[in-house]
Amino acid sequence: MSKKPSIPKGTRDFNAEEVAKRSYIMETIKEQFQLYGFQPIETPSFENSETLMGKYGDEGDRLIFKILNSGEYFEKNLEKIIGFKATEVSSEITQFFIEFLERIRFKFNKDSTFEEISDFINEDIHNYIITDGKGRIYKYRHYLRKYIINQRDSIAVRIKKRDGFFDNDGAFEHFKQIELVEICGYASSFIFEYLVKNISSQRISSEISEKALRYDLTVPFARYVVQHQNEIEFPFKRYQIQPVWRADRPQKGRFREFYQCDADVVGSKSLFQEVEFVQLYDAVFTALDLKGVTIKINNRKILSGIAEVIGAQDKLIDFTVALDKLDKIGEEKVKDEMRSKGISEAGIAKLQPLFSLEGDFGNQVESLKSILGASEIGKTGIDELEFINSAISNLKLKTAKLQLDVTLARGLNYYTGAIFEVSAPEGVKMGSIGGGGRYDDLTSIFGKPDTSGVGISFGLDRIYLVLEELNLFPETITDATKVLFINFGDQEALACLEAVTQLRQHGIKAELYPDSAKMKKQMTYANRRNIPYVVLVGEEELQSKLFTLKTMETGAQEKLKLPDLLQALR
Amino acid sequence: MSKKPSIPKGTRDFNAEEVAKRSYIMETIKEQFQLYGFQPIETPSFENSETLMGKYGDEGDRLIFKILNSGEYFEKNLEKIIGFKATEVSSEITQFFIEFLERIRFKFNKDSTFEEISDFINEDIHNYIITDGKGRIYKYRHYLRKYIINQRDSIAVRIKKRDGFFDNDGAFEHFKQIELVEICGYASSFIFEYLVKNISSQRISSEISEKALRYDLTVPFARYVVQHQNEIEFPFKRYQIQPVWRADRPQKGRFREFYQCDADVVGSKSLFQEVEFVQLYDAVFTALDLKGVTIKINNRKILSGIAEVIGAQDKLIDFTVALDKLDKIGEEKVKDEMRSKGISEAGIAKLQPLFSLEGDFGNQVESLKSILGASEIGKTGIDELEFINSAISNLKLKTAKLQLDVTLARGLNYYTGAIFEVSAPEGVKMGSIGGGGRYDDLTSIFGKPDTSGVGISFGLDRIYLVLEELNLFPETITDATKVLFINFGDQEALACLEAVTQLRQHGIKAELYPDSAKMKKQMTYANRRNIPYVVLVGEEELQSKLFTLKTMETGAQEKLKLPDLLQALR
Repeated sequence: MSKKPSIPKGTRDFNAEEVAKRSYIMETIKEQFQLYGFQPIETPSFENSETLMGKYGDEGDRLIFKILNSGEYFEKNLEKIIGFKATEVSSEITQFFIEFLERIRFKFNKDSTFEEISDFINEDIHNYIITDGKGRIYKYRHYLRKYIINQRDSIAVRIKKRDGFFDNDGAFEHFKQIELVEICGYASSFIFEYLVKNISSQRISSEISEKALRYDLTVPFARYVVQHQNEIEFPFKRYQIQPVWRADRPQKGRFREFYQCDADVVGSKSLFQEVEFVQLYDAVFTALDLKGVTIKINNRKILSGIAEVIGAQDKLIDFTVALDKLDKIGEEKVKDEMRSKGISEAGIAKLQPLFSLEGDFGNQVESLKSILGASEIGKTGIDELEFINSAISNLKLKTAKLQLDVTLARGLNYYTGAIFEVSAPEGVKMGSIGGGGRYDDLTSIFGKPDTSGVGISFGLDRIYLVLEELNLFPETITDATKVLFINFGDQEALACLEAVTQLRQHGIKAELYPDSAKMKKQMTYANRRNIPYVVLVGEEELQSKLFTLKTMETGAQEKLKLPDLLQALR
Repeated sequence: MSKKPSIPKGTRDFNAEEVAKRSYIMETIKEQFQLYGFQPIETPSFENSETLMGKYGDEGDRLIFKILNSGEYFEKNLEKIIGFKATEVSSEITQFFIEFLERIRFKFNKDSTFEEISDFINEDIHNYIITDGKGRIYKYRHYLRKYIINQRDSIAVRIKKRDGFFDNDGAFEHFKQIELVEICGYASSFIFEYLVKNISSQRISSEISEKALRYDLTVPFARYVVQHQNEIEFPFKRYQIQPVWRADRPQKGRFREFYQCDADVVGSKSLFQEVEFVQLYDAVFTALDLKGVTIKINNRKILSGIAEVIGAQDKLIDFTVALDKLDKIGEEKVKDEMRSKGISEAGIAKLQPLFSLEGDFGNQVESLKSILGASEIGKTGIDELEFINSAISNLKLKTAKLQLDVTLARGLNYYTGAIFEVSAPEGVKMGSIGGGGRYDDLTSIFGKPDTSGVGISFGLDRIYLVLEELNLFPETITDATKVLFINFGDQEALACLEAVTQLRQHGIKAELYPDSAKMKKQMTYANRRNIPYVVLVGEEELQSKLFTLKTMETGAQEKLKLPDLLQALR
């Protein structure tokens, strides 16, 4: 292999600096997760396909990476892949042709016209439905009918050519024998055509793949909760920081392998959890020194309430999609879009206060109340919001702010209560850096109903980009080597290695240059690796048991005994 | 989905305790890696298939998890999967039949016998080789010939039935037209049969899969080094702790997803690196408090030297496989096996000192010298061993011991110098818990020759089992919650949450029970989660701004002000 090696699109290699920076973010998040009482779990990178498929909609199913079964997956599944047993169908078709020949045997004579014969075949086949004895007609049988009808003219040519079937058993048997050779051809031809026309990667996937890479952490978590429900104490507070994989088209900031950092609680409906998640967001971003993030909050019940009030319960998604564009396209165009989706003028009029929501959380809630007065579910949504906001006002956030955003509708099909989304500080162009919400029925897909949950997620890659842009990574996070011992030869190197061993035992990151290469080469190595100190032990130092410590930045040198060297590098 | 959810065989869920224990091992290893100057890298979970395939032998290729391409991978690749273009072959076959009919047209008359016709077809087809104009015969054409010869009797029946071909253009054209219908059948039938008989999962895999899950960390590392060679300073010391996947048959202690922890240096042949790796093993196991591990060392050059001396250079593997069994089957049976592999009596006699290697490292080396006297490569191997052993004697190990093991031959096809393997302390039944060695040509597979490397690996899962068995996990490693605040109602809970927030800001892991459930339920929760303290704030405490702290183990309670509570829980 001589071409330059590469990695799959949408994936990344991380060098030491990147690993250290990513690890800094993850460790910071992890520390706060633990302070808040969340316990770590880890799940396998791949799950059984049935665990994942059908949980993320059709688009999601398409984006799940499937793992090929090992061994002779194709040979063993050929019949399933074709969709039927080739041998059985072949004999069924043969049987069908024999019966067909019997049916038309006495129908024609030498005066029959070509058209008569052709029309008869057409009708006979149309009437002749091959069922499985229980009245079921399989898809391939429909296909066979279509096939014969298409062939009816050439069949008619043959029958006509033979003057119909004369009333002579020997001749008929002979004809049948010949036709049967063709029938084998028809059957195979049919099977092959059917295979080619009906082949579908989607269907084949399920035959040749039983496992798939994790698409998010939420579904595996739900599976975990149900599978281990007897070992878990509820309410169960778990965090999970692991990679997920999506066969999405890669683009800037969107990768096919990326980490998710999730914290969830299942088993309680208490709103104190929403309160704590707002605090947790604040705590993490404060710990990352990322000031001024906005935690946007909304409630699915408020959106349902509004839809109810304006008589558009069945248009909840259209309505929220339009509302979500308010910032971008302005009030009038949002109204136009709502009209185009069939929301009434009267309904839109009732929404007016929404377009001018202003002031603080409290004021906005008052405006919402004026819209939602009549809606029971809307009122519940407002109560929930007020509870959370009042608790947070009381507890105070350190650096983030909590903001009501009625246009927030992420994961609408999924969330049932609070909805969260976190924006980077103003001035940083970046999508949301976190999000979450409450879901009331996640584990029921795996057979455990009535288990409410609420959770949030941190977008590692985007947080990384924000910290990079704002220059917020601490300078000390790369675990780089502190001192390099220059190698002047085996004897000197061995003495160095004794010192290196000592330094390491005292927690100082130290290296010996492995070869007694030219001094310049070794110094260049120290420079390029940003190693701040080098130690030189030549013949003289070896004699005097001293170590020459050189500070790379200043060039300053001093001769030290080992204990002093240790002290100097601490 | 009502059946109990599960995970794929060979994979594992990890609960909080397991995550903490695994993380403890990985962090300990990571800390030592960094002290020794290794830098972390991470590579993607999946690589391009061509990066991995062919690097681990046939067995390895089989055990690599392949990822199905997304989209219509099957429809798009149908021709590649079948092995030829169905339409082209179909028309080639039709053309072949037309020419065949032309050739036999005037050969027969009504007096021709069935046997004459059949024999002619047989000969005609045998003589008729379909080449592509360059004289090449494709595999499917051979198959077609075989197919027609099998069908020759039924073709002969038909020709006989028509009195040969009478010399009448209209009738011949008519016949051809009819036969062509059949020919379509033949062609399809042929294609289908060919497909079924020639389908091979292995071949299909390469058409429908372009990516595969990482099988180890070494090959991705080699790929990384070559791909990023211009960004890297050599010698490059990297560590990597990531999961790998193998489609191996799962069994006790063998999983389909498991972590590898590797440290390697590439770009230097210095033996100081081998010395440092021995120290590194010692440092890690000392840090894990796992005393008494044995670091076994051998050298590929010694094995080559022995094979040379006994005249069995070509039987190096047979020879080492036999020698490796010395512990299990004893000297005589090892000699028997060597004899059965064709090693001469004279050669075996020369090995005698090997069977009684005794004493310390130095004594064993002396015995080896007596065997290897004449071998240049063997002598080099001994020099290397002695260098490493003498340096280690000088530097001293803390808790491990270094031991020569001439039977050690792991990765023989791969290693070129030192070979390492680490055994758990005596008394613990466990295979090797680490291993490694020097390889001189790893990156050449990706186009960068002459880059020597040496590295070691830690077996996370086995180390876990050993620490568990010896009860060596520190008690404090699970990051469990320290205090639970009992929830007596919204007002009390809110006051609790203020205190919880304070505690968390001081680094104390604290939780509020989210619901005002029955006292007993909340206490049971604290108990089952092993939370050592609970705090009770009822109406009275709310009034007096005191917190009742209860120590779960003793049941002792005391009322404290917030600052004192904070102090007590620190």
